[in-house]
Amino acid sequence: MTFPRYTPLVAALPSTVPFVGPETQERERGAAFDARLGANENTFGPSPRAIDAMQAAAGDVWMYGDAQSHDLRKALAAEHGVRPEHIVVGEGIDGLLGYLVRLVVGEGDAVVTSEGAYPTFNYHVSGFGGVLHKVPYRDDREDPEALIEKAREVGAKLVYIANPDNPMGSWHSGADLLAALDRLPEGCLMIVDEAYVECAPEGTALPVQPDDPRVIRMRTFSKVYGMAGARIGYALAAPDLIRAFDKVRNHFGINRIAQAGALAALEDRDWLAHVQGEIATARDRIGQIARDNGLTPLPSATNFVAIDCGGDGALAARVVAGLIARGVFVRMPFAAPQNRCIRVSAAPAETLEFFARALPEALAEAREG
Amino acid sequence: MTFPRYTPLVAALPSTVPFVGPETQERERGAAFDARLGANENTFGPSPRAIDAMQAAAGDVWMYGDAQSHDLRKALAAEHGVRPEHIVVGEGIDGLLGYLVRLVVGEGDAVVTSEGAYPTFNYHVSGFGGVLHKVPYRDDREDPEALIEKAREVGAKLVYIANPDNPMGSWHSGADLLAALDRLPEGCLMIVDEAYVECAPEGTALPVQPDDPRVIRMRTFSKVYGMAGARIGYALAAPDLIRAFDKVRNHFGINRIAQAGALAALEDRDWLAHVQGEIATARDRIGQIARDNGLTPLPSATNFVAIDCGGDGALAARVVAGLIARGVFVRMPFAAPQNRCIRVSAAPAETLEFFARALPEALAEAREG
Repeated sequence: MTFPRYTPLVAALPSTVPFVGPETQERERGAAFDARLGANENTFGPSPRAIDAMQAAAGDVWMYGDAQSHDLRKALAAEHGVRPEHIVVGEGIDGLLGYLVRLVVGEGDAVVTSEGAYPTFNYHVSGFGGVLHKVPYRDDREDPEALIEKAREVGAKLVYIANPDNPMGSWHSGADLLAALDRLPEGCLMIVDEAYVECAPEGTALPVQPDDPRVIRMRTFSKVYGMAGARIGYALAAPDLIRAFDKVRNHFGINRIAQAGALAALEDRDWLAHVQGEIATARDRIGQIARDNGLTPLPSATNFVAIDCGGDGALAARVVAGLIARGVFVRMPFAAPQNRCIRVSAAPAETLEFFARALPEALAEAREG
Repeated sequence: MTFPRYTPLVAALPSTVPFVGPETQERERGAAFDARLGANENTFGPSPRAIDAMQAAAGDVWMYGDAQSHDLRKALAAEHGVRPEHIVVGEGIDGLLGYLVRLVVGEGDAVVTSEGAYPTFNYHVSGFGGVLHKVPYRDDREDPEALIEKAREVGAKLVYIANPDNPMGSWHSGADLLAALDRLPEGCLMIVDEAYVECAPEGTALPVQPDDPRVIRMRTFSKVYGMAGARIGYALAAPDLIRAFDKVRNHFGINRIAQAGALAALEDRDWLAHVQGEIATARDRIGQIARDNGLTPLPSATNFVAIDCGGDGALAARVVAGLIARGVFVRMPFAAPQNRCIRVSAAPAETLEFFARALPEALAEAREG
């Protein structure tokens, strides 16, 4: 007999993890990266006011965080023109996706996503015994019509779309996505992962009514707000669904320092605008570096740029390996044909110079095979 | 049709939460507490070195935390004389208990705990469809023999014991508990929640071999290390079980600032000794306050003291209400006969004075009924 007796579901789960972190890779290569451009972190950092708030909160960390994230939810409600009852704060979008999948997905339940979309969502679905159905990208964008058609076909309980998309950086207008929702089958909830929406053109956020029961939107302080290590994000949905999270969430799970930092970050609109500008500049610079090497940058509404390396996934994987060997941490999409690309996060010019210097050699090496 | 279609298990779950937080109570009463003595937080605070480390890490929070908590696990392994493979770091013991229950407990599976023991563990068991079997305390202590006997009787997959115990503060020697383990039925994993063990007499920690597959020990930085708001704890168990957490855990879920703070806290042995001394002093003071009011303090190996109010649960509940009305946040055990007590956390003398001043009035009022 084995100790302990795992559930049959768990016993059958693979031990693979969604992502290998940069620190793990640094330990494996025996050296730190010069440029950390692979996890879509915000190298421009959090608001100085958020840093101040977190430093001030450090001495208070002997207290559990507020289990209701009251002050933050109140501020977020004002920001979005909704009520606090429309908002649940969680341990990043990863944590919230885990809770949501647990609420809805039992063994054998159908879930729809795109081939090559966010692996951590898939990890949660598999982890609760759901069956993933995947539709391909269309012109390097997620395909709302195809996702919804597949959801209807398989009787999905959840359908996932990231807008803007990770890993491609592509996007749909919020109005188009809202129109597509009218074809969503009964009993299917759409997750709109808006992790990067603050980097996107006006009109990208889903202009949905807050009480609409068909959709839940995910937001985070990890990206444009520069607080990935704080593990704090939130979901916007109808109050019934938000209340359901209370049945399964880790009520005292939100770090007190993170709550203080997120509140301060939200209030610092000047820093947000500053970072948005820096990200736009960095996207242009990444695009220029790509073109200087004869490669094609894809349009991006995120804090990263997918660069078409002009070959197949094997070529792109060799480019990634060559960059990592030269101290530049990047990643690439998982599925063909998007895996012809590498994905490079926005960063200050001096950080991107490491990429600019490493890319020609990595590319030449990769082309030799 | 309802949106979304929850799993049958979730649909049947109650919306009750394990604990109402002090901030929630403060909002309800419209005033802050003068003394926060109800959540067994460590009012003496974290190590100044931990605060420094967290403040220094605040500016790095744009990076995700290390998914492997490598440095912290290495330090913890040295501390415990085990290998990093024996340790998983999680979002507090609450988070780790959730993962563990998910690994082991499916719908209908039997789990054993004590009547009146940690409600958040019960919340997780119910949340994954497990069936709780409870045994009574014996002389205000958890009863290892009865727990193990019940586990055998019901074929439990998990049996939970806190040593020292919350909410009573009582304890067993590690040697006694280890001896009891020899009667644990095959296929049953014992969870030993050692959240408070650093406050306990030498010899309380379970002296188990690190590869022993029968037991998993839970530890935290929330209590004696004073970092409840950081949400960071760890489990010690055989490597196979530790590896299984990788199938379900939120890999990037550990706050980067918390990792830095925990590492610094662990290294500051002087502060640990200082806090241990302050806690011992505070326990004595709480005991004196109890006796000054004709009440009986129970022996404690934790950072709190259970005080026998000399009546039933209704009387103790009125004492708690009276203290809360007077700005002193305390809690009480949930189950009879332990609910004849109130539970008061260790704190500096000036904070305990609020309790000393409020108790006579609260007690008189409670006795009037």
